[in-house]
Amino acid sequence: MRPKVILFGDSITEESFTNGGWGAALADHFSRTADVVLRGYSGYNTRWALKVAARALDGVCEDGEWPLALTVFFGANDASIHDRSSGFQHVPLDEYQSNLRSIISFFKERWPTTVIVLITPPPIDEDGRLSKCRNPFGDDASGLPERTNDSAGAYAKACIAVASESNIPVIDIWSKMQQFSGWEKSFLRDGLHFTAPGNKILFEEVVKKLEESGISVDTLPVDLPPFSEIDPKDPLKAFER
Amino acid sequence: MRPKVILFGDSITEESFTNGGWGAALADHFSRTADVVLRGYSGYNTRWALKVAARALDGVCEDGEWPLALTVFFGANDASIHDRSSGFQHVPLDEYQSNLRSIISFFKERWPTTVIVLITPPPIDEDGRLSKCRNPFGDDASGLPERTNDSAGAYAKACIAVASESNIPVIDIWSKMQQFSGWEKSFLRDGLHFTAPGNKILFEEVVKKLEESGISVDTLPVDLPPFSEIDPKDPLKAFER
Repeated sequence: MRPKVILFGDSITEESFTNGGWGAALADHFSRTADVVLRGYSGYNTRWALKVAARALDGVCEDGEWPLALTVFFGANDASIHDRSSGFQHVPLDEYQSNLRSIISFFKERWPTTVIVLITPPPIDEDGRLSKCRNPFGDDASGLPERTNDSAGAYAKACIAVASESNIPVIDIWSKMQQFSGWEKSFLRDGLHFTAPGNKILFEEVVKKLEESGISVDTLPVDLPPFSEIDPKDPLKAFER
Repeated sequence: MRPKVILFGDSITEESFTNGGWGAALADHFSRTADVVLRGYSGYNTRWALKVAARALDGVCEDGEWPLALTVFFGANDASIHDRSSGFQHVPLDEYQSNLRSIISFFKERWPTTVIVLITPPPIDEDGRLSKCRNPFGDDASGLPERTNDSAGAYAKACIAVASESNIPVIDIWSKMQQFSGWEKSFLRDGLHFTAPGNKILFEEVVKKLEESGISVDTLPVDLPPFSEIDPKDPLKAFER
């Protein structure tokens, strides 16, 4: 049975199989070695994620089967500014941390050997939010973006702290993206969600983090004989094993 | 538990999660309703597929769980010309049909309600094969392509006949692509494998065929409350159900 890599997160996870998406790229990367399972829930914060964690992953693994890895990627919605148009998605910083701890504990208890990778919220391009975001609850006339980069940064730092105390790997995508000049428009299509180059950055970070945890296409068993190992003079021999 | 759509085929299935791929597009299409499971095996023909069908799908479904749908997409390798450089992948036309019948029977017996969709081999751009294909067994000095469009067409017709006698849906991608002028270069990147527009054509055909069989995002249950159904004034209410 092929091992599984589960992606649990918000809209940036839910849309990760669109053109150039980081989830699709992972599925392609592991095309003969692992199944990538999509569990993305647009708009969700950690408060809601904690409510649904058991139901979301129900039936993904058989009894006794533990996934290889699980990415937990929430915070972009928690970090919404509480008194602006997406305030109902906001979760206070200390509750965000406590929710992350509970989500990690839940999965650690259920799947003790699974590599859990936390991903911080991405940076926010406030100009992109104002110009590209279709505000679904347009009664906020303040003209201020419903998310800010400072707030996302505070949640990123809090996420890293939880990973550190829990001794699990974390991808600081908030900092990583901002290492590149022009990240605002090149990596984010609406100030929050990823362009294809933004997706590529995250894909590469996930692959690197999994490799550091011992999960790599070079070491995972390949599902059925690869074409390169089939002898043109006696093809069926490869299938006798 | 989310239902599954399984993609079983050769390299055009294996690489279906690359950028713009039809498999990734399906996973995105069903992002909240079904899991798309990749079982693509580069280079495989129906003879080899039949040998591995049980092992390839082992553990994908729990006992008593039947997938929603399964695409079976082989024939591009079977149709290789027998005395040219990919001859060891060739399978005679009548054996191709009998192998397809056996593969269908195997899955029908195992999963009686699963919608099985056959996909014919795609058309071949012989010029593209000669100019773009890196021949892995370069001892054929004939200068003739290892695949021809006529041969692929004969296998496509044979595939349609098997679908018809088995009363299961079939996608005639061989004919479909050739309805568009310039299909040779716009849909095929090396005379055989798909470009992004080629992938899009197949994705749309699969969605259409599944819809005709009653499988649609409009009718499948959505996994957990969609963001649009969460009340901003009382978000947690949505999670009490």
